[in-house]
Amino acid sequence: MKVTSPTGEAAIGKPMGNYITLEVPRLKENDQELYEETCKALAKELTRILNLRDDSTILVIGLGNWNVTPDALGPKAVSGLMVTRHLLEYVPEQVDKGVRPVCAVSPGVLGITGIETGEIVRGIVDRVRPDIVIAIDALASRKMERVNTTIQIADTGIAPGSGVGNKRMELSRETLGVPVIAIGVPTVVDAATMANDTIDLVIDNLIKEAKDDAHFYNLLKNIDKNEKYQLIQEVLQPYVGNLVVTPKEIDDVVDRIAKVIANGLNIALHQGITLNDVNRYVQ
Amino acid sequence: MKVTSPTGEAAIGKPMGNYITLEVPRLKENDQELYEETCKALAKELTRILNLRDDSTILVIGLGNWNVTPDALGPKAVSGLMVTRHLLEYVPEQVDKGVRPVCAVSPGVLGITGIETGEIVRGIVDRVRPDIVIAIDALASRKMERVNTTIQIADTGIAPGSGVGNKRMELSRETLGVPVIAIGVPTVVDAATMANDTIDLVIDNLIKEAKDDAHFYNLLKNIDKNEKYQLIQEVLQPYVGNLVVTPKEIDDVVDRIAKVIANGLNIALHQGITLNDVNRYVQ
Amino acid sequence: MKVTSPTGEAAIGKPMGNYITLEVPRLKENDQELYEETCKALAKELTRILNLRDDSTILVIGLGNWNVTPDALGPKAVSGLMVTRHLLEYVPEQVDKGVRPVCAVSPGVLGITGIETGEIVRGIVDRVRPDIVIAIDALASRKMERVNTTIQIADTGIAPGSGVGNKRMELSRETLGVPVIAIGVPTVVDAATMANDTIDLVIDNLIKEAKDDAHFYNLLKNIDKNEKYQLIQEVLQPYVGNLVVTPKEIDDVVDRIAKVIANGLNIALHQGITLNDVNRYVQ
Amino acid sequence: MKVTSPTGEAAIGKPMGNYITLEVPRLKENDQELYEETCKALAKELTRILNLRDDSTILVIGLGNWNVTPDALGPKAVSGLMVTRHLLEYVPEQVDKGVRPVCAVSPGVLGITGIETGEIVRGIVDRVRPDIVIAIDALASRKMERVNTTIQIADTGIAPGSGVGNKRMELSRETLGVPVIAIGVPTVVDAATMANDTIDLVIDNLIKEAKDDAHFYNLLKNIDKNEKYQLIQEVLQPYVGNLVVTPKEIDDVVDRIAKVIANGLNIALHQGITLNDVNRYVQ
Repeated sequence: MKVTSPTGEAAIGKPMGNYITLEVPRLKENDQELYEETCKALAKELTRILNLRDDSTILVIGLGNWNVTPDALGPKAVSGLMVTRHLLEYVPEQVDKGVRPVCAVSPGVLGITGIETGEIVRGIVDRVRPDIVIAIDALASRKMERVNTTIQIADTGIAPGSGVGNKRMELSRETLGVPVIAIGVPTVVDAATMANDTIDLVIDNLIKEAKDDAHFYNLLKNIDKNEKYQLIQEVLQPYVGNLVVTPKEIDDVVDRIAKVIANGLNIALHQGITLNDVNRYVQ
Repeated sequence: MKVTSPTGEAAIGKPMGNYITLEVPRLKENDQELYEETCKALAKELTRILNLRDDSTILVIGLGNWNVTPDALGPKAVSGLMVTRHLLEYVPEQVDKGVRPVCAVSPGVLGITGIETGEIVRGIVDRVRPDIVIAIDALASRKMERVNTTIQIADTGIAPGSGVGNKRMELSRETLGVPVIAIGVPTVVDAATMANDTIDLVIDNLIKEAKDDAHFYNLLKNIDKNEKYQLIQEVLQPYVGNLVVTPKEIDDVVDRIAKVIANGLNIALHQGITLNDVNRYVQ
Repeated sequence: MKVTSPTGEAAIGKPMGNYITLEVPRLKENDQELYEETCKALAKELTRILNLRDDSTILVIGLGNWNVTPDALGPKAVSGLMVTRHLLEYVPEQVDKGVRPVCAVSPGVLGITGIETGEIVRGIVDRVRPDIVIAIDALASRKMERVNTTIQIADTGIAPGSGVGNKRMELSRETLGVPVIAIGVPTVVDAATMANDTIDLVIDNLIKEAKDDAHFYNLLKNIDKNEKYQLIQEVLQPYVGNLVVTPKEIDDVVDRIAKVIANGLNIALHQGITLNDVNRYVQ
Repeated sequence: MKVTSPTGEAAIGKPMGNYITLEVPRLKENDQELYEETCKALAKELTRILNLRDDSTILVIGLGNWNVTPDALGPKAVSGLMVTRHLLEYVPEQVDKGVRPVCAVSPGVLGITGIETGEIVRGIVDRVRPDIVIAIDALASRKMERVNTTIQIADTGIAPGSGVGNKRMELSRETLGVPVIAIGVPTVVDAATMANDTIDLVIDNLIKEAKDDAHFYNLLKNIDKNEKYQLIQEVLQPYVGNLVVTPKEIDDVVDRIAKVIANGLNIALHQGITLNDVNRYVQ
């Protein structure tokens, strides 16, 4: 498990802030040991970037559409969280020391509610007044090898339309008035990206094996990257509509990654809570 | 199908307002004709009590816990609604004439979100600024014969703690600033109520059949109603905890009633929309 | 946790055989430690009664209707089993030593398949030729205090119509030709039973508090047990239909008990497999 | 809607028999009118190929894995069937004239049950002795444009391993002793196929636009079809594992197509039953 970290704004065309990527090539596999390790590694990174006070109130938002399997990651992760804000308010004596007030909502998507997700979140933030918001979302990747193998954390909020669904809101310190930490996992790759990557792989392979004819393939290879991607999108348009590429067993994979994120958060958000303690709190 | 209507505040100890009860003894049965009739009858009553303008914006709230079958009525009804507010905003040319802006949210329950449901709803109302709020909820009945046979409509809002779950909020014109119409269906009866009703039925039966000994039974019968209910609750305490009485096929029954409410609303909220049109809008 | 054991045929009106009842009063609660203990205790009892050879092939049958929450226990338990028969056949080198060939089916109920469940099971037994069949089923209890607190094991097969659903088959050594171990958990109590028990509790309480009037109550108390139960069923008939009494959180409770049974079986059916190993096998 | 029909064995490398393909380009869309038309068209084709007697007993098999969304088509279709065999046996007086004895089972997949699906089906067929078996299955397409747009019917049984899951059985007159009608719908296309198709589309496009350089592209185009497909599979291997290409909204699409198949069958299997009657029978 390699953890690569902070990179600047200019270099990669993203807003300034901290970006952490956990690379877990076997994240989608069913392995108890790896699962526990990943939870702990995620918790460690989250603890650092969240930088919570002892009494910070945390609002977790599970973005995405629970009716669309690869987009259901956020709502599923939220359903595995230790939600404690109401316990600390109504029965504080039953709550372990170190447990922070956590609340959590899955607001749905525009097509389900008829309301911009950002509006719903802002309405809730205005009433709850949390110290920090954490937004969990499934992403559509532009790189085949990232699908279901990386967990991306950023303190820059979450940009509109970046997910699998059509989400136009931005959740950020600017719109919500409190820091927003985004946790994203690419669960699909769009069909055009996948075709594009495959063509490059095929050409590389052809060039390697070809001798004299290599320059033919180089022609294809050297087509401008964006131009080629656009061409692929064009020719695919009539066939693919909204096609996405996912592992066949996507239902299981999403369940498993949602559990990793939920428990990574459970450990990071509460002090002195371990994986073994979680079951007492989670319904 | 009998529709009983307006009764005053003093008489029945409820806040002043309009109360409508649709009695549909066979509501829980799977009968296509009855289903369509009930949708239409419900739509008719709703149209009257809602009293909408052509351009009224409606926010529907599905109260209750989607993880608890008999309490999932509200969220299930919401998932069958024609949600149109975003279509009217972004693609008005694709929307039929007469369709009003409807949005809908299932806010969950305190134990799931850590936030008072009333707070979430108020946050959303503040952002969306609907003209009217409709709240759908599963109820715990105090009368055995009402379970899954009645749909109760009121324009007085919805009182705290009246549902199956532990909901402490009040959704009303006072708290939300707009009219609140409540649609409730009793889906369970609590165990003590059921035992109590049974005892009364048994005693009535014994009295009828007894001659000389009738006065013995009358003794039992004449125990103060509240005292008896309390006694029953006491003796049941160690055994029952949170026992509820439901039809065995409660999963199906809740699905069916949720569909009736959704389509009753779909017809009432939009002008010129019939049962046949609904499928084009509902995902 | 008390384990009561073998009782004879004559005494209790059940067929001759071994009966084991695990009493776990807090079985329905969410407690990780108790959960692990119960899995192990169940495994211990199952190991004894199953009496497997090293190479025994085991067929597990999850009885009940997966669409009816309190009846879904069997299918849910089956979905948590380590199914290994195909692995031992096709990739034996990938299977740990001590793992026995286990296969598992949830055959549905008559109303879903149109086929007697016993016929389906017999057809599968004829093809698979297991050494032993284990049938898991949700039961309707006649005792309020047994609901979701006991796991009943018997080596006499499973009698028709004893479950929540309408199951007319008998699965036993006589019908299937191999030993049949039944694992049953009462998940509901029927409404008449519950009313009956409550009346007895109320009367006991009245007698205790009454002095002179005690003989009145004794009259009621002394009504023949069966007569009283029948009377209650009669008066309830028009109201209750198929009413059952369950904990409000029955969805969670069934999930939890299904997991206990699945893992009790996983430990008992395979040698050297512990709770920690299970996740590698279960999908 | 175009219905292309019978083609011979030699021509297309499939076993001799009747093949019918319903092409419904908008099958995956949510359109009530199209849905009803498709049900009826499917029923018409099925009626012809099934060629039932008045008293034929029909066993429907829903193949595939209910836990894998694009593979759940068979089990979902089965859950929408009018199952009547038990009604005709136990309460024939309650059944409409023209209704035939239909029973239905979803046997799961090898990874779930540990038993070859073909063995389970054969065991059930041996007990039920139906006159005909209908097997419904999700398919992995080799043609992008067929995904979720075609319903394929054949009277040749269903070949092993042709579905999304790993199913090694063959269900046919040879193995089961009764005619087997297969209904298949391609719900995914494998990633290599999709990449391959895209490359061809891209090259075609490049050739069209290129003038002098066309011969370079023709080189690529003229690589042997199978060789190219194999090359693509090779270069994709490390990245894709089990990647499939599906519409983003696959959950909805599978639900919708399953309903079309269920109701096409409901109309075809029973005489005098219309779409409106179905609800009275389906739970």
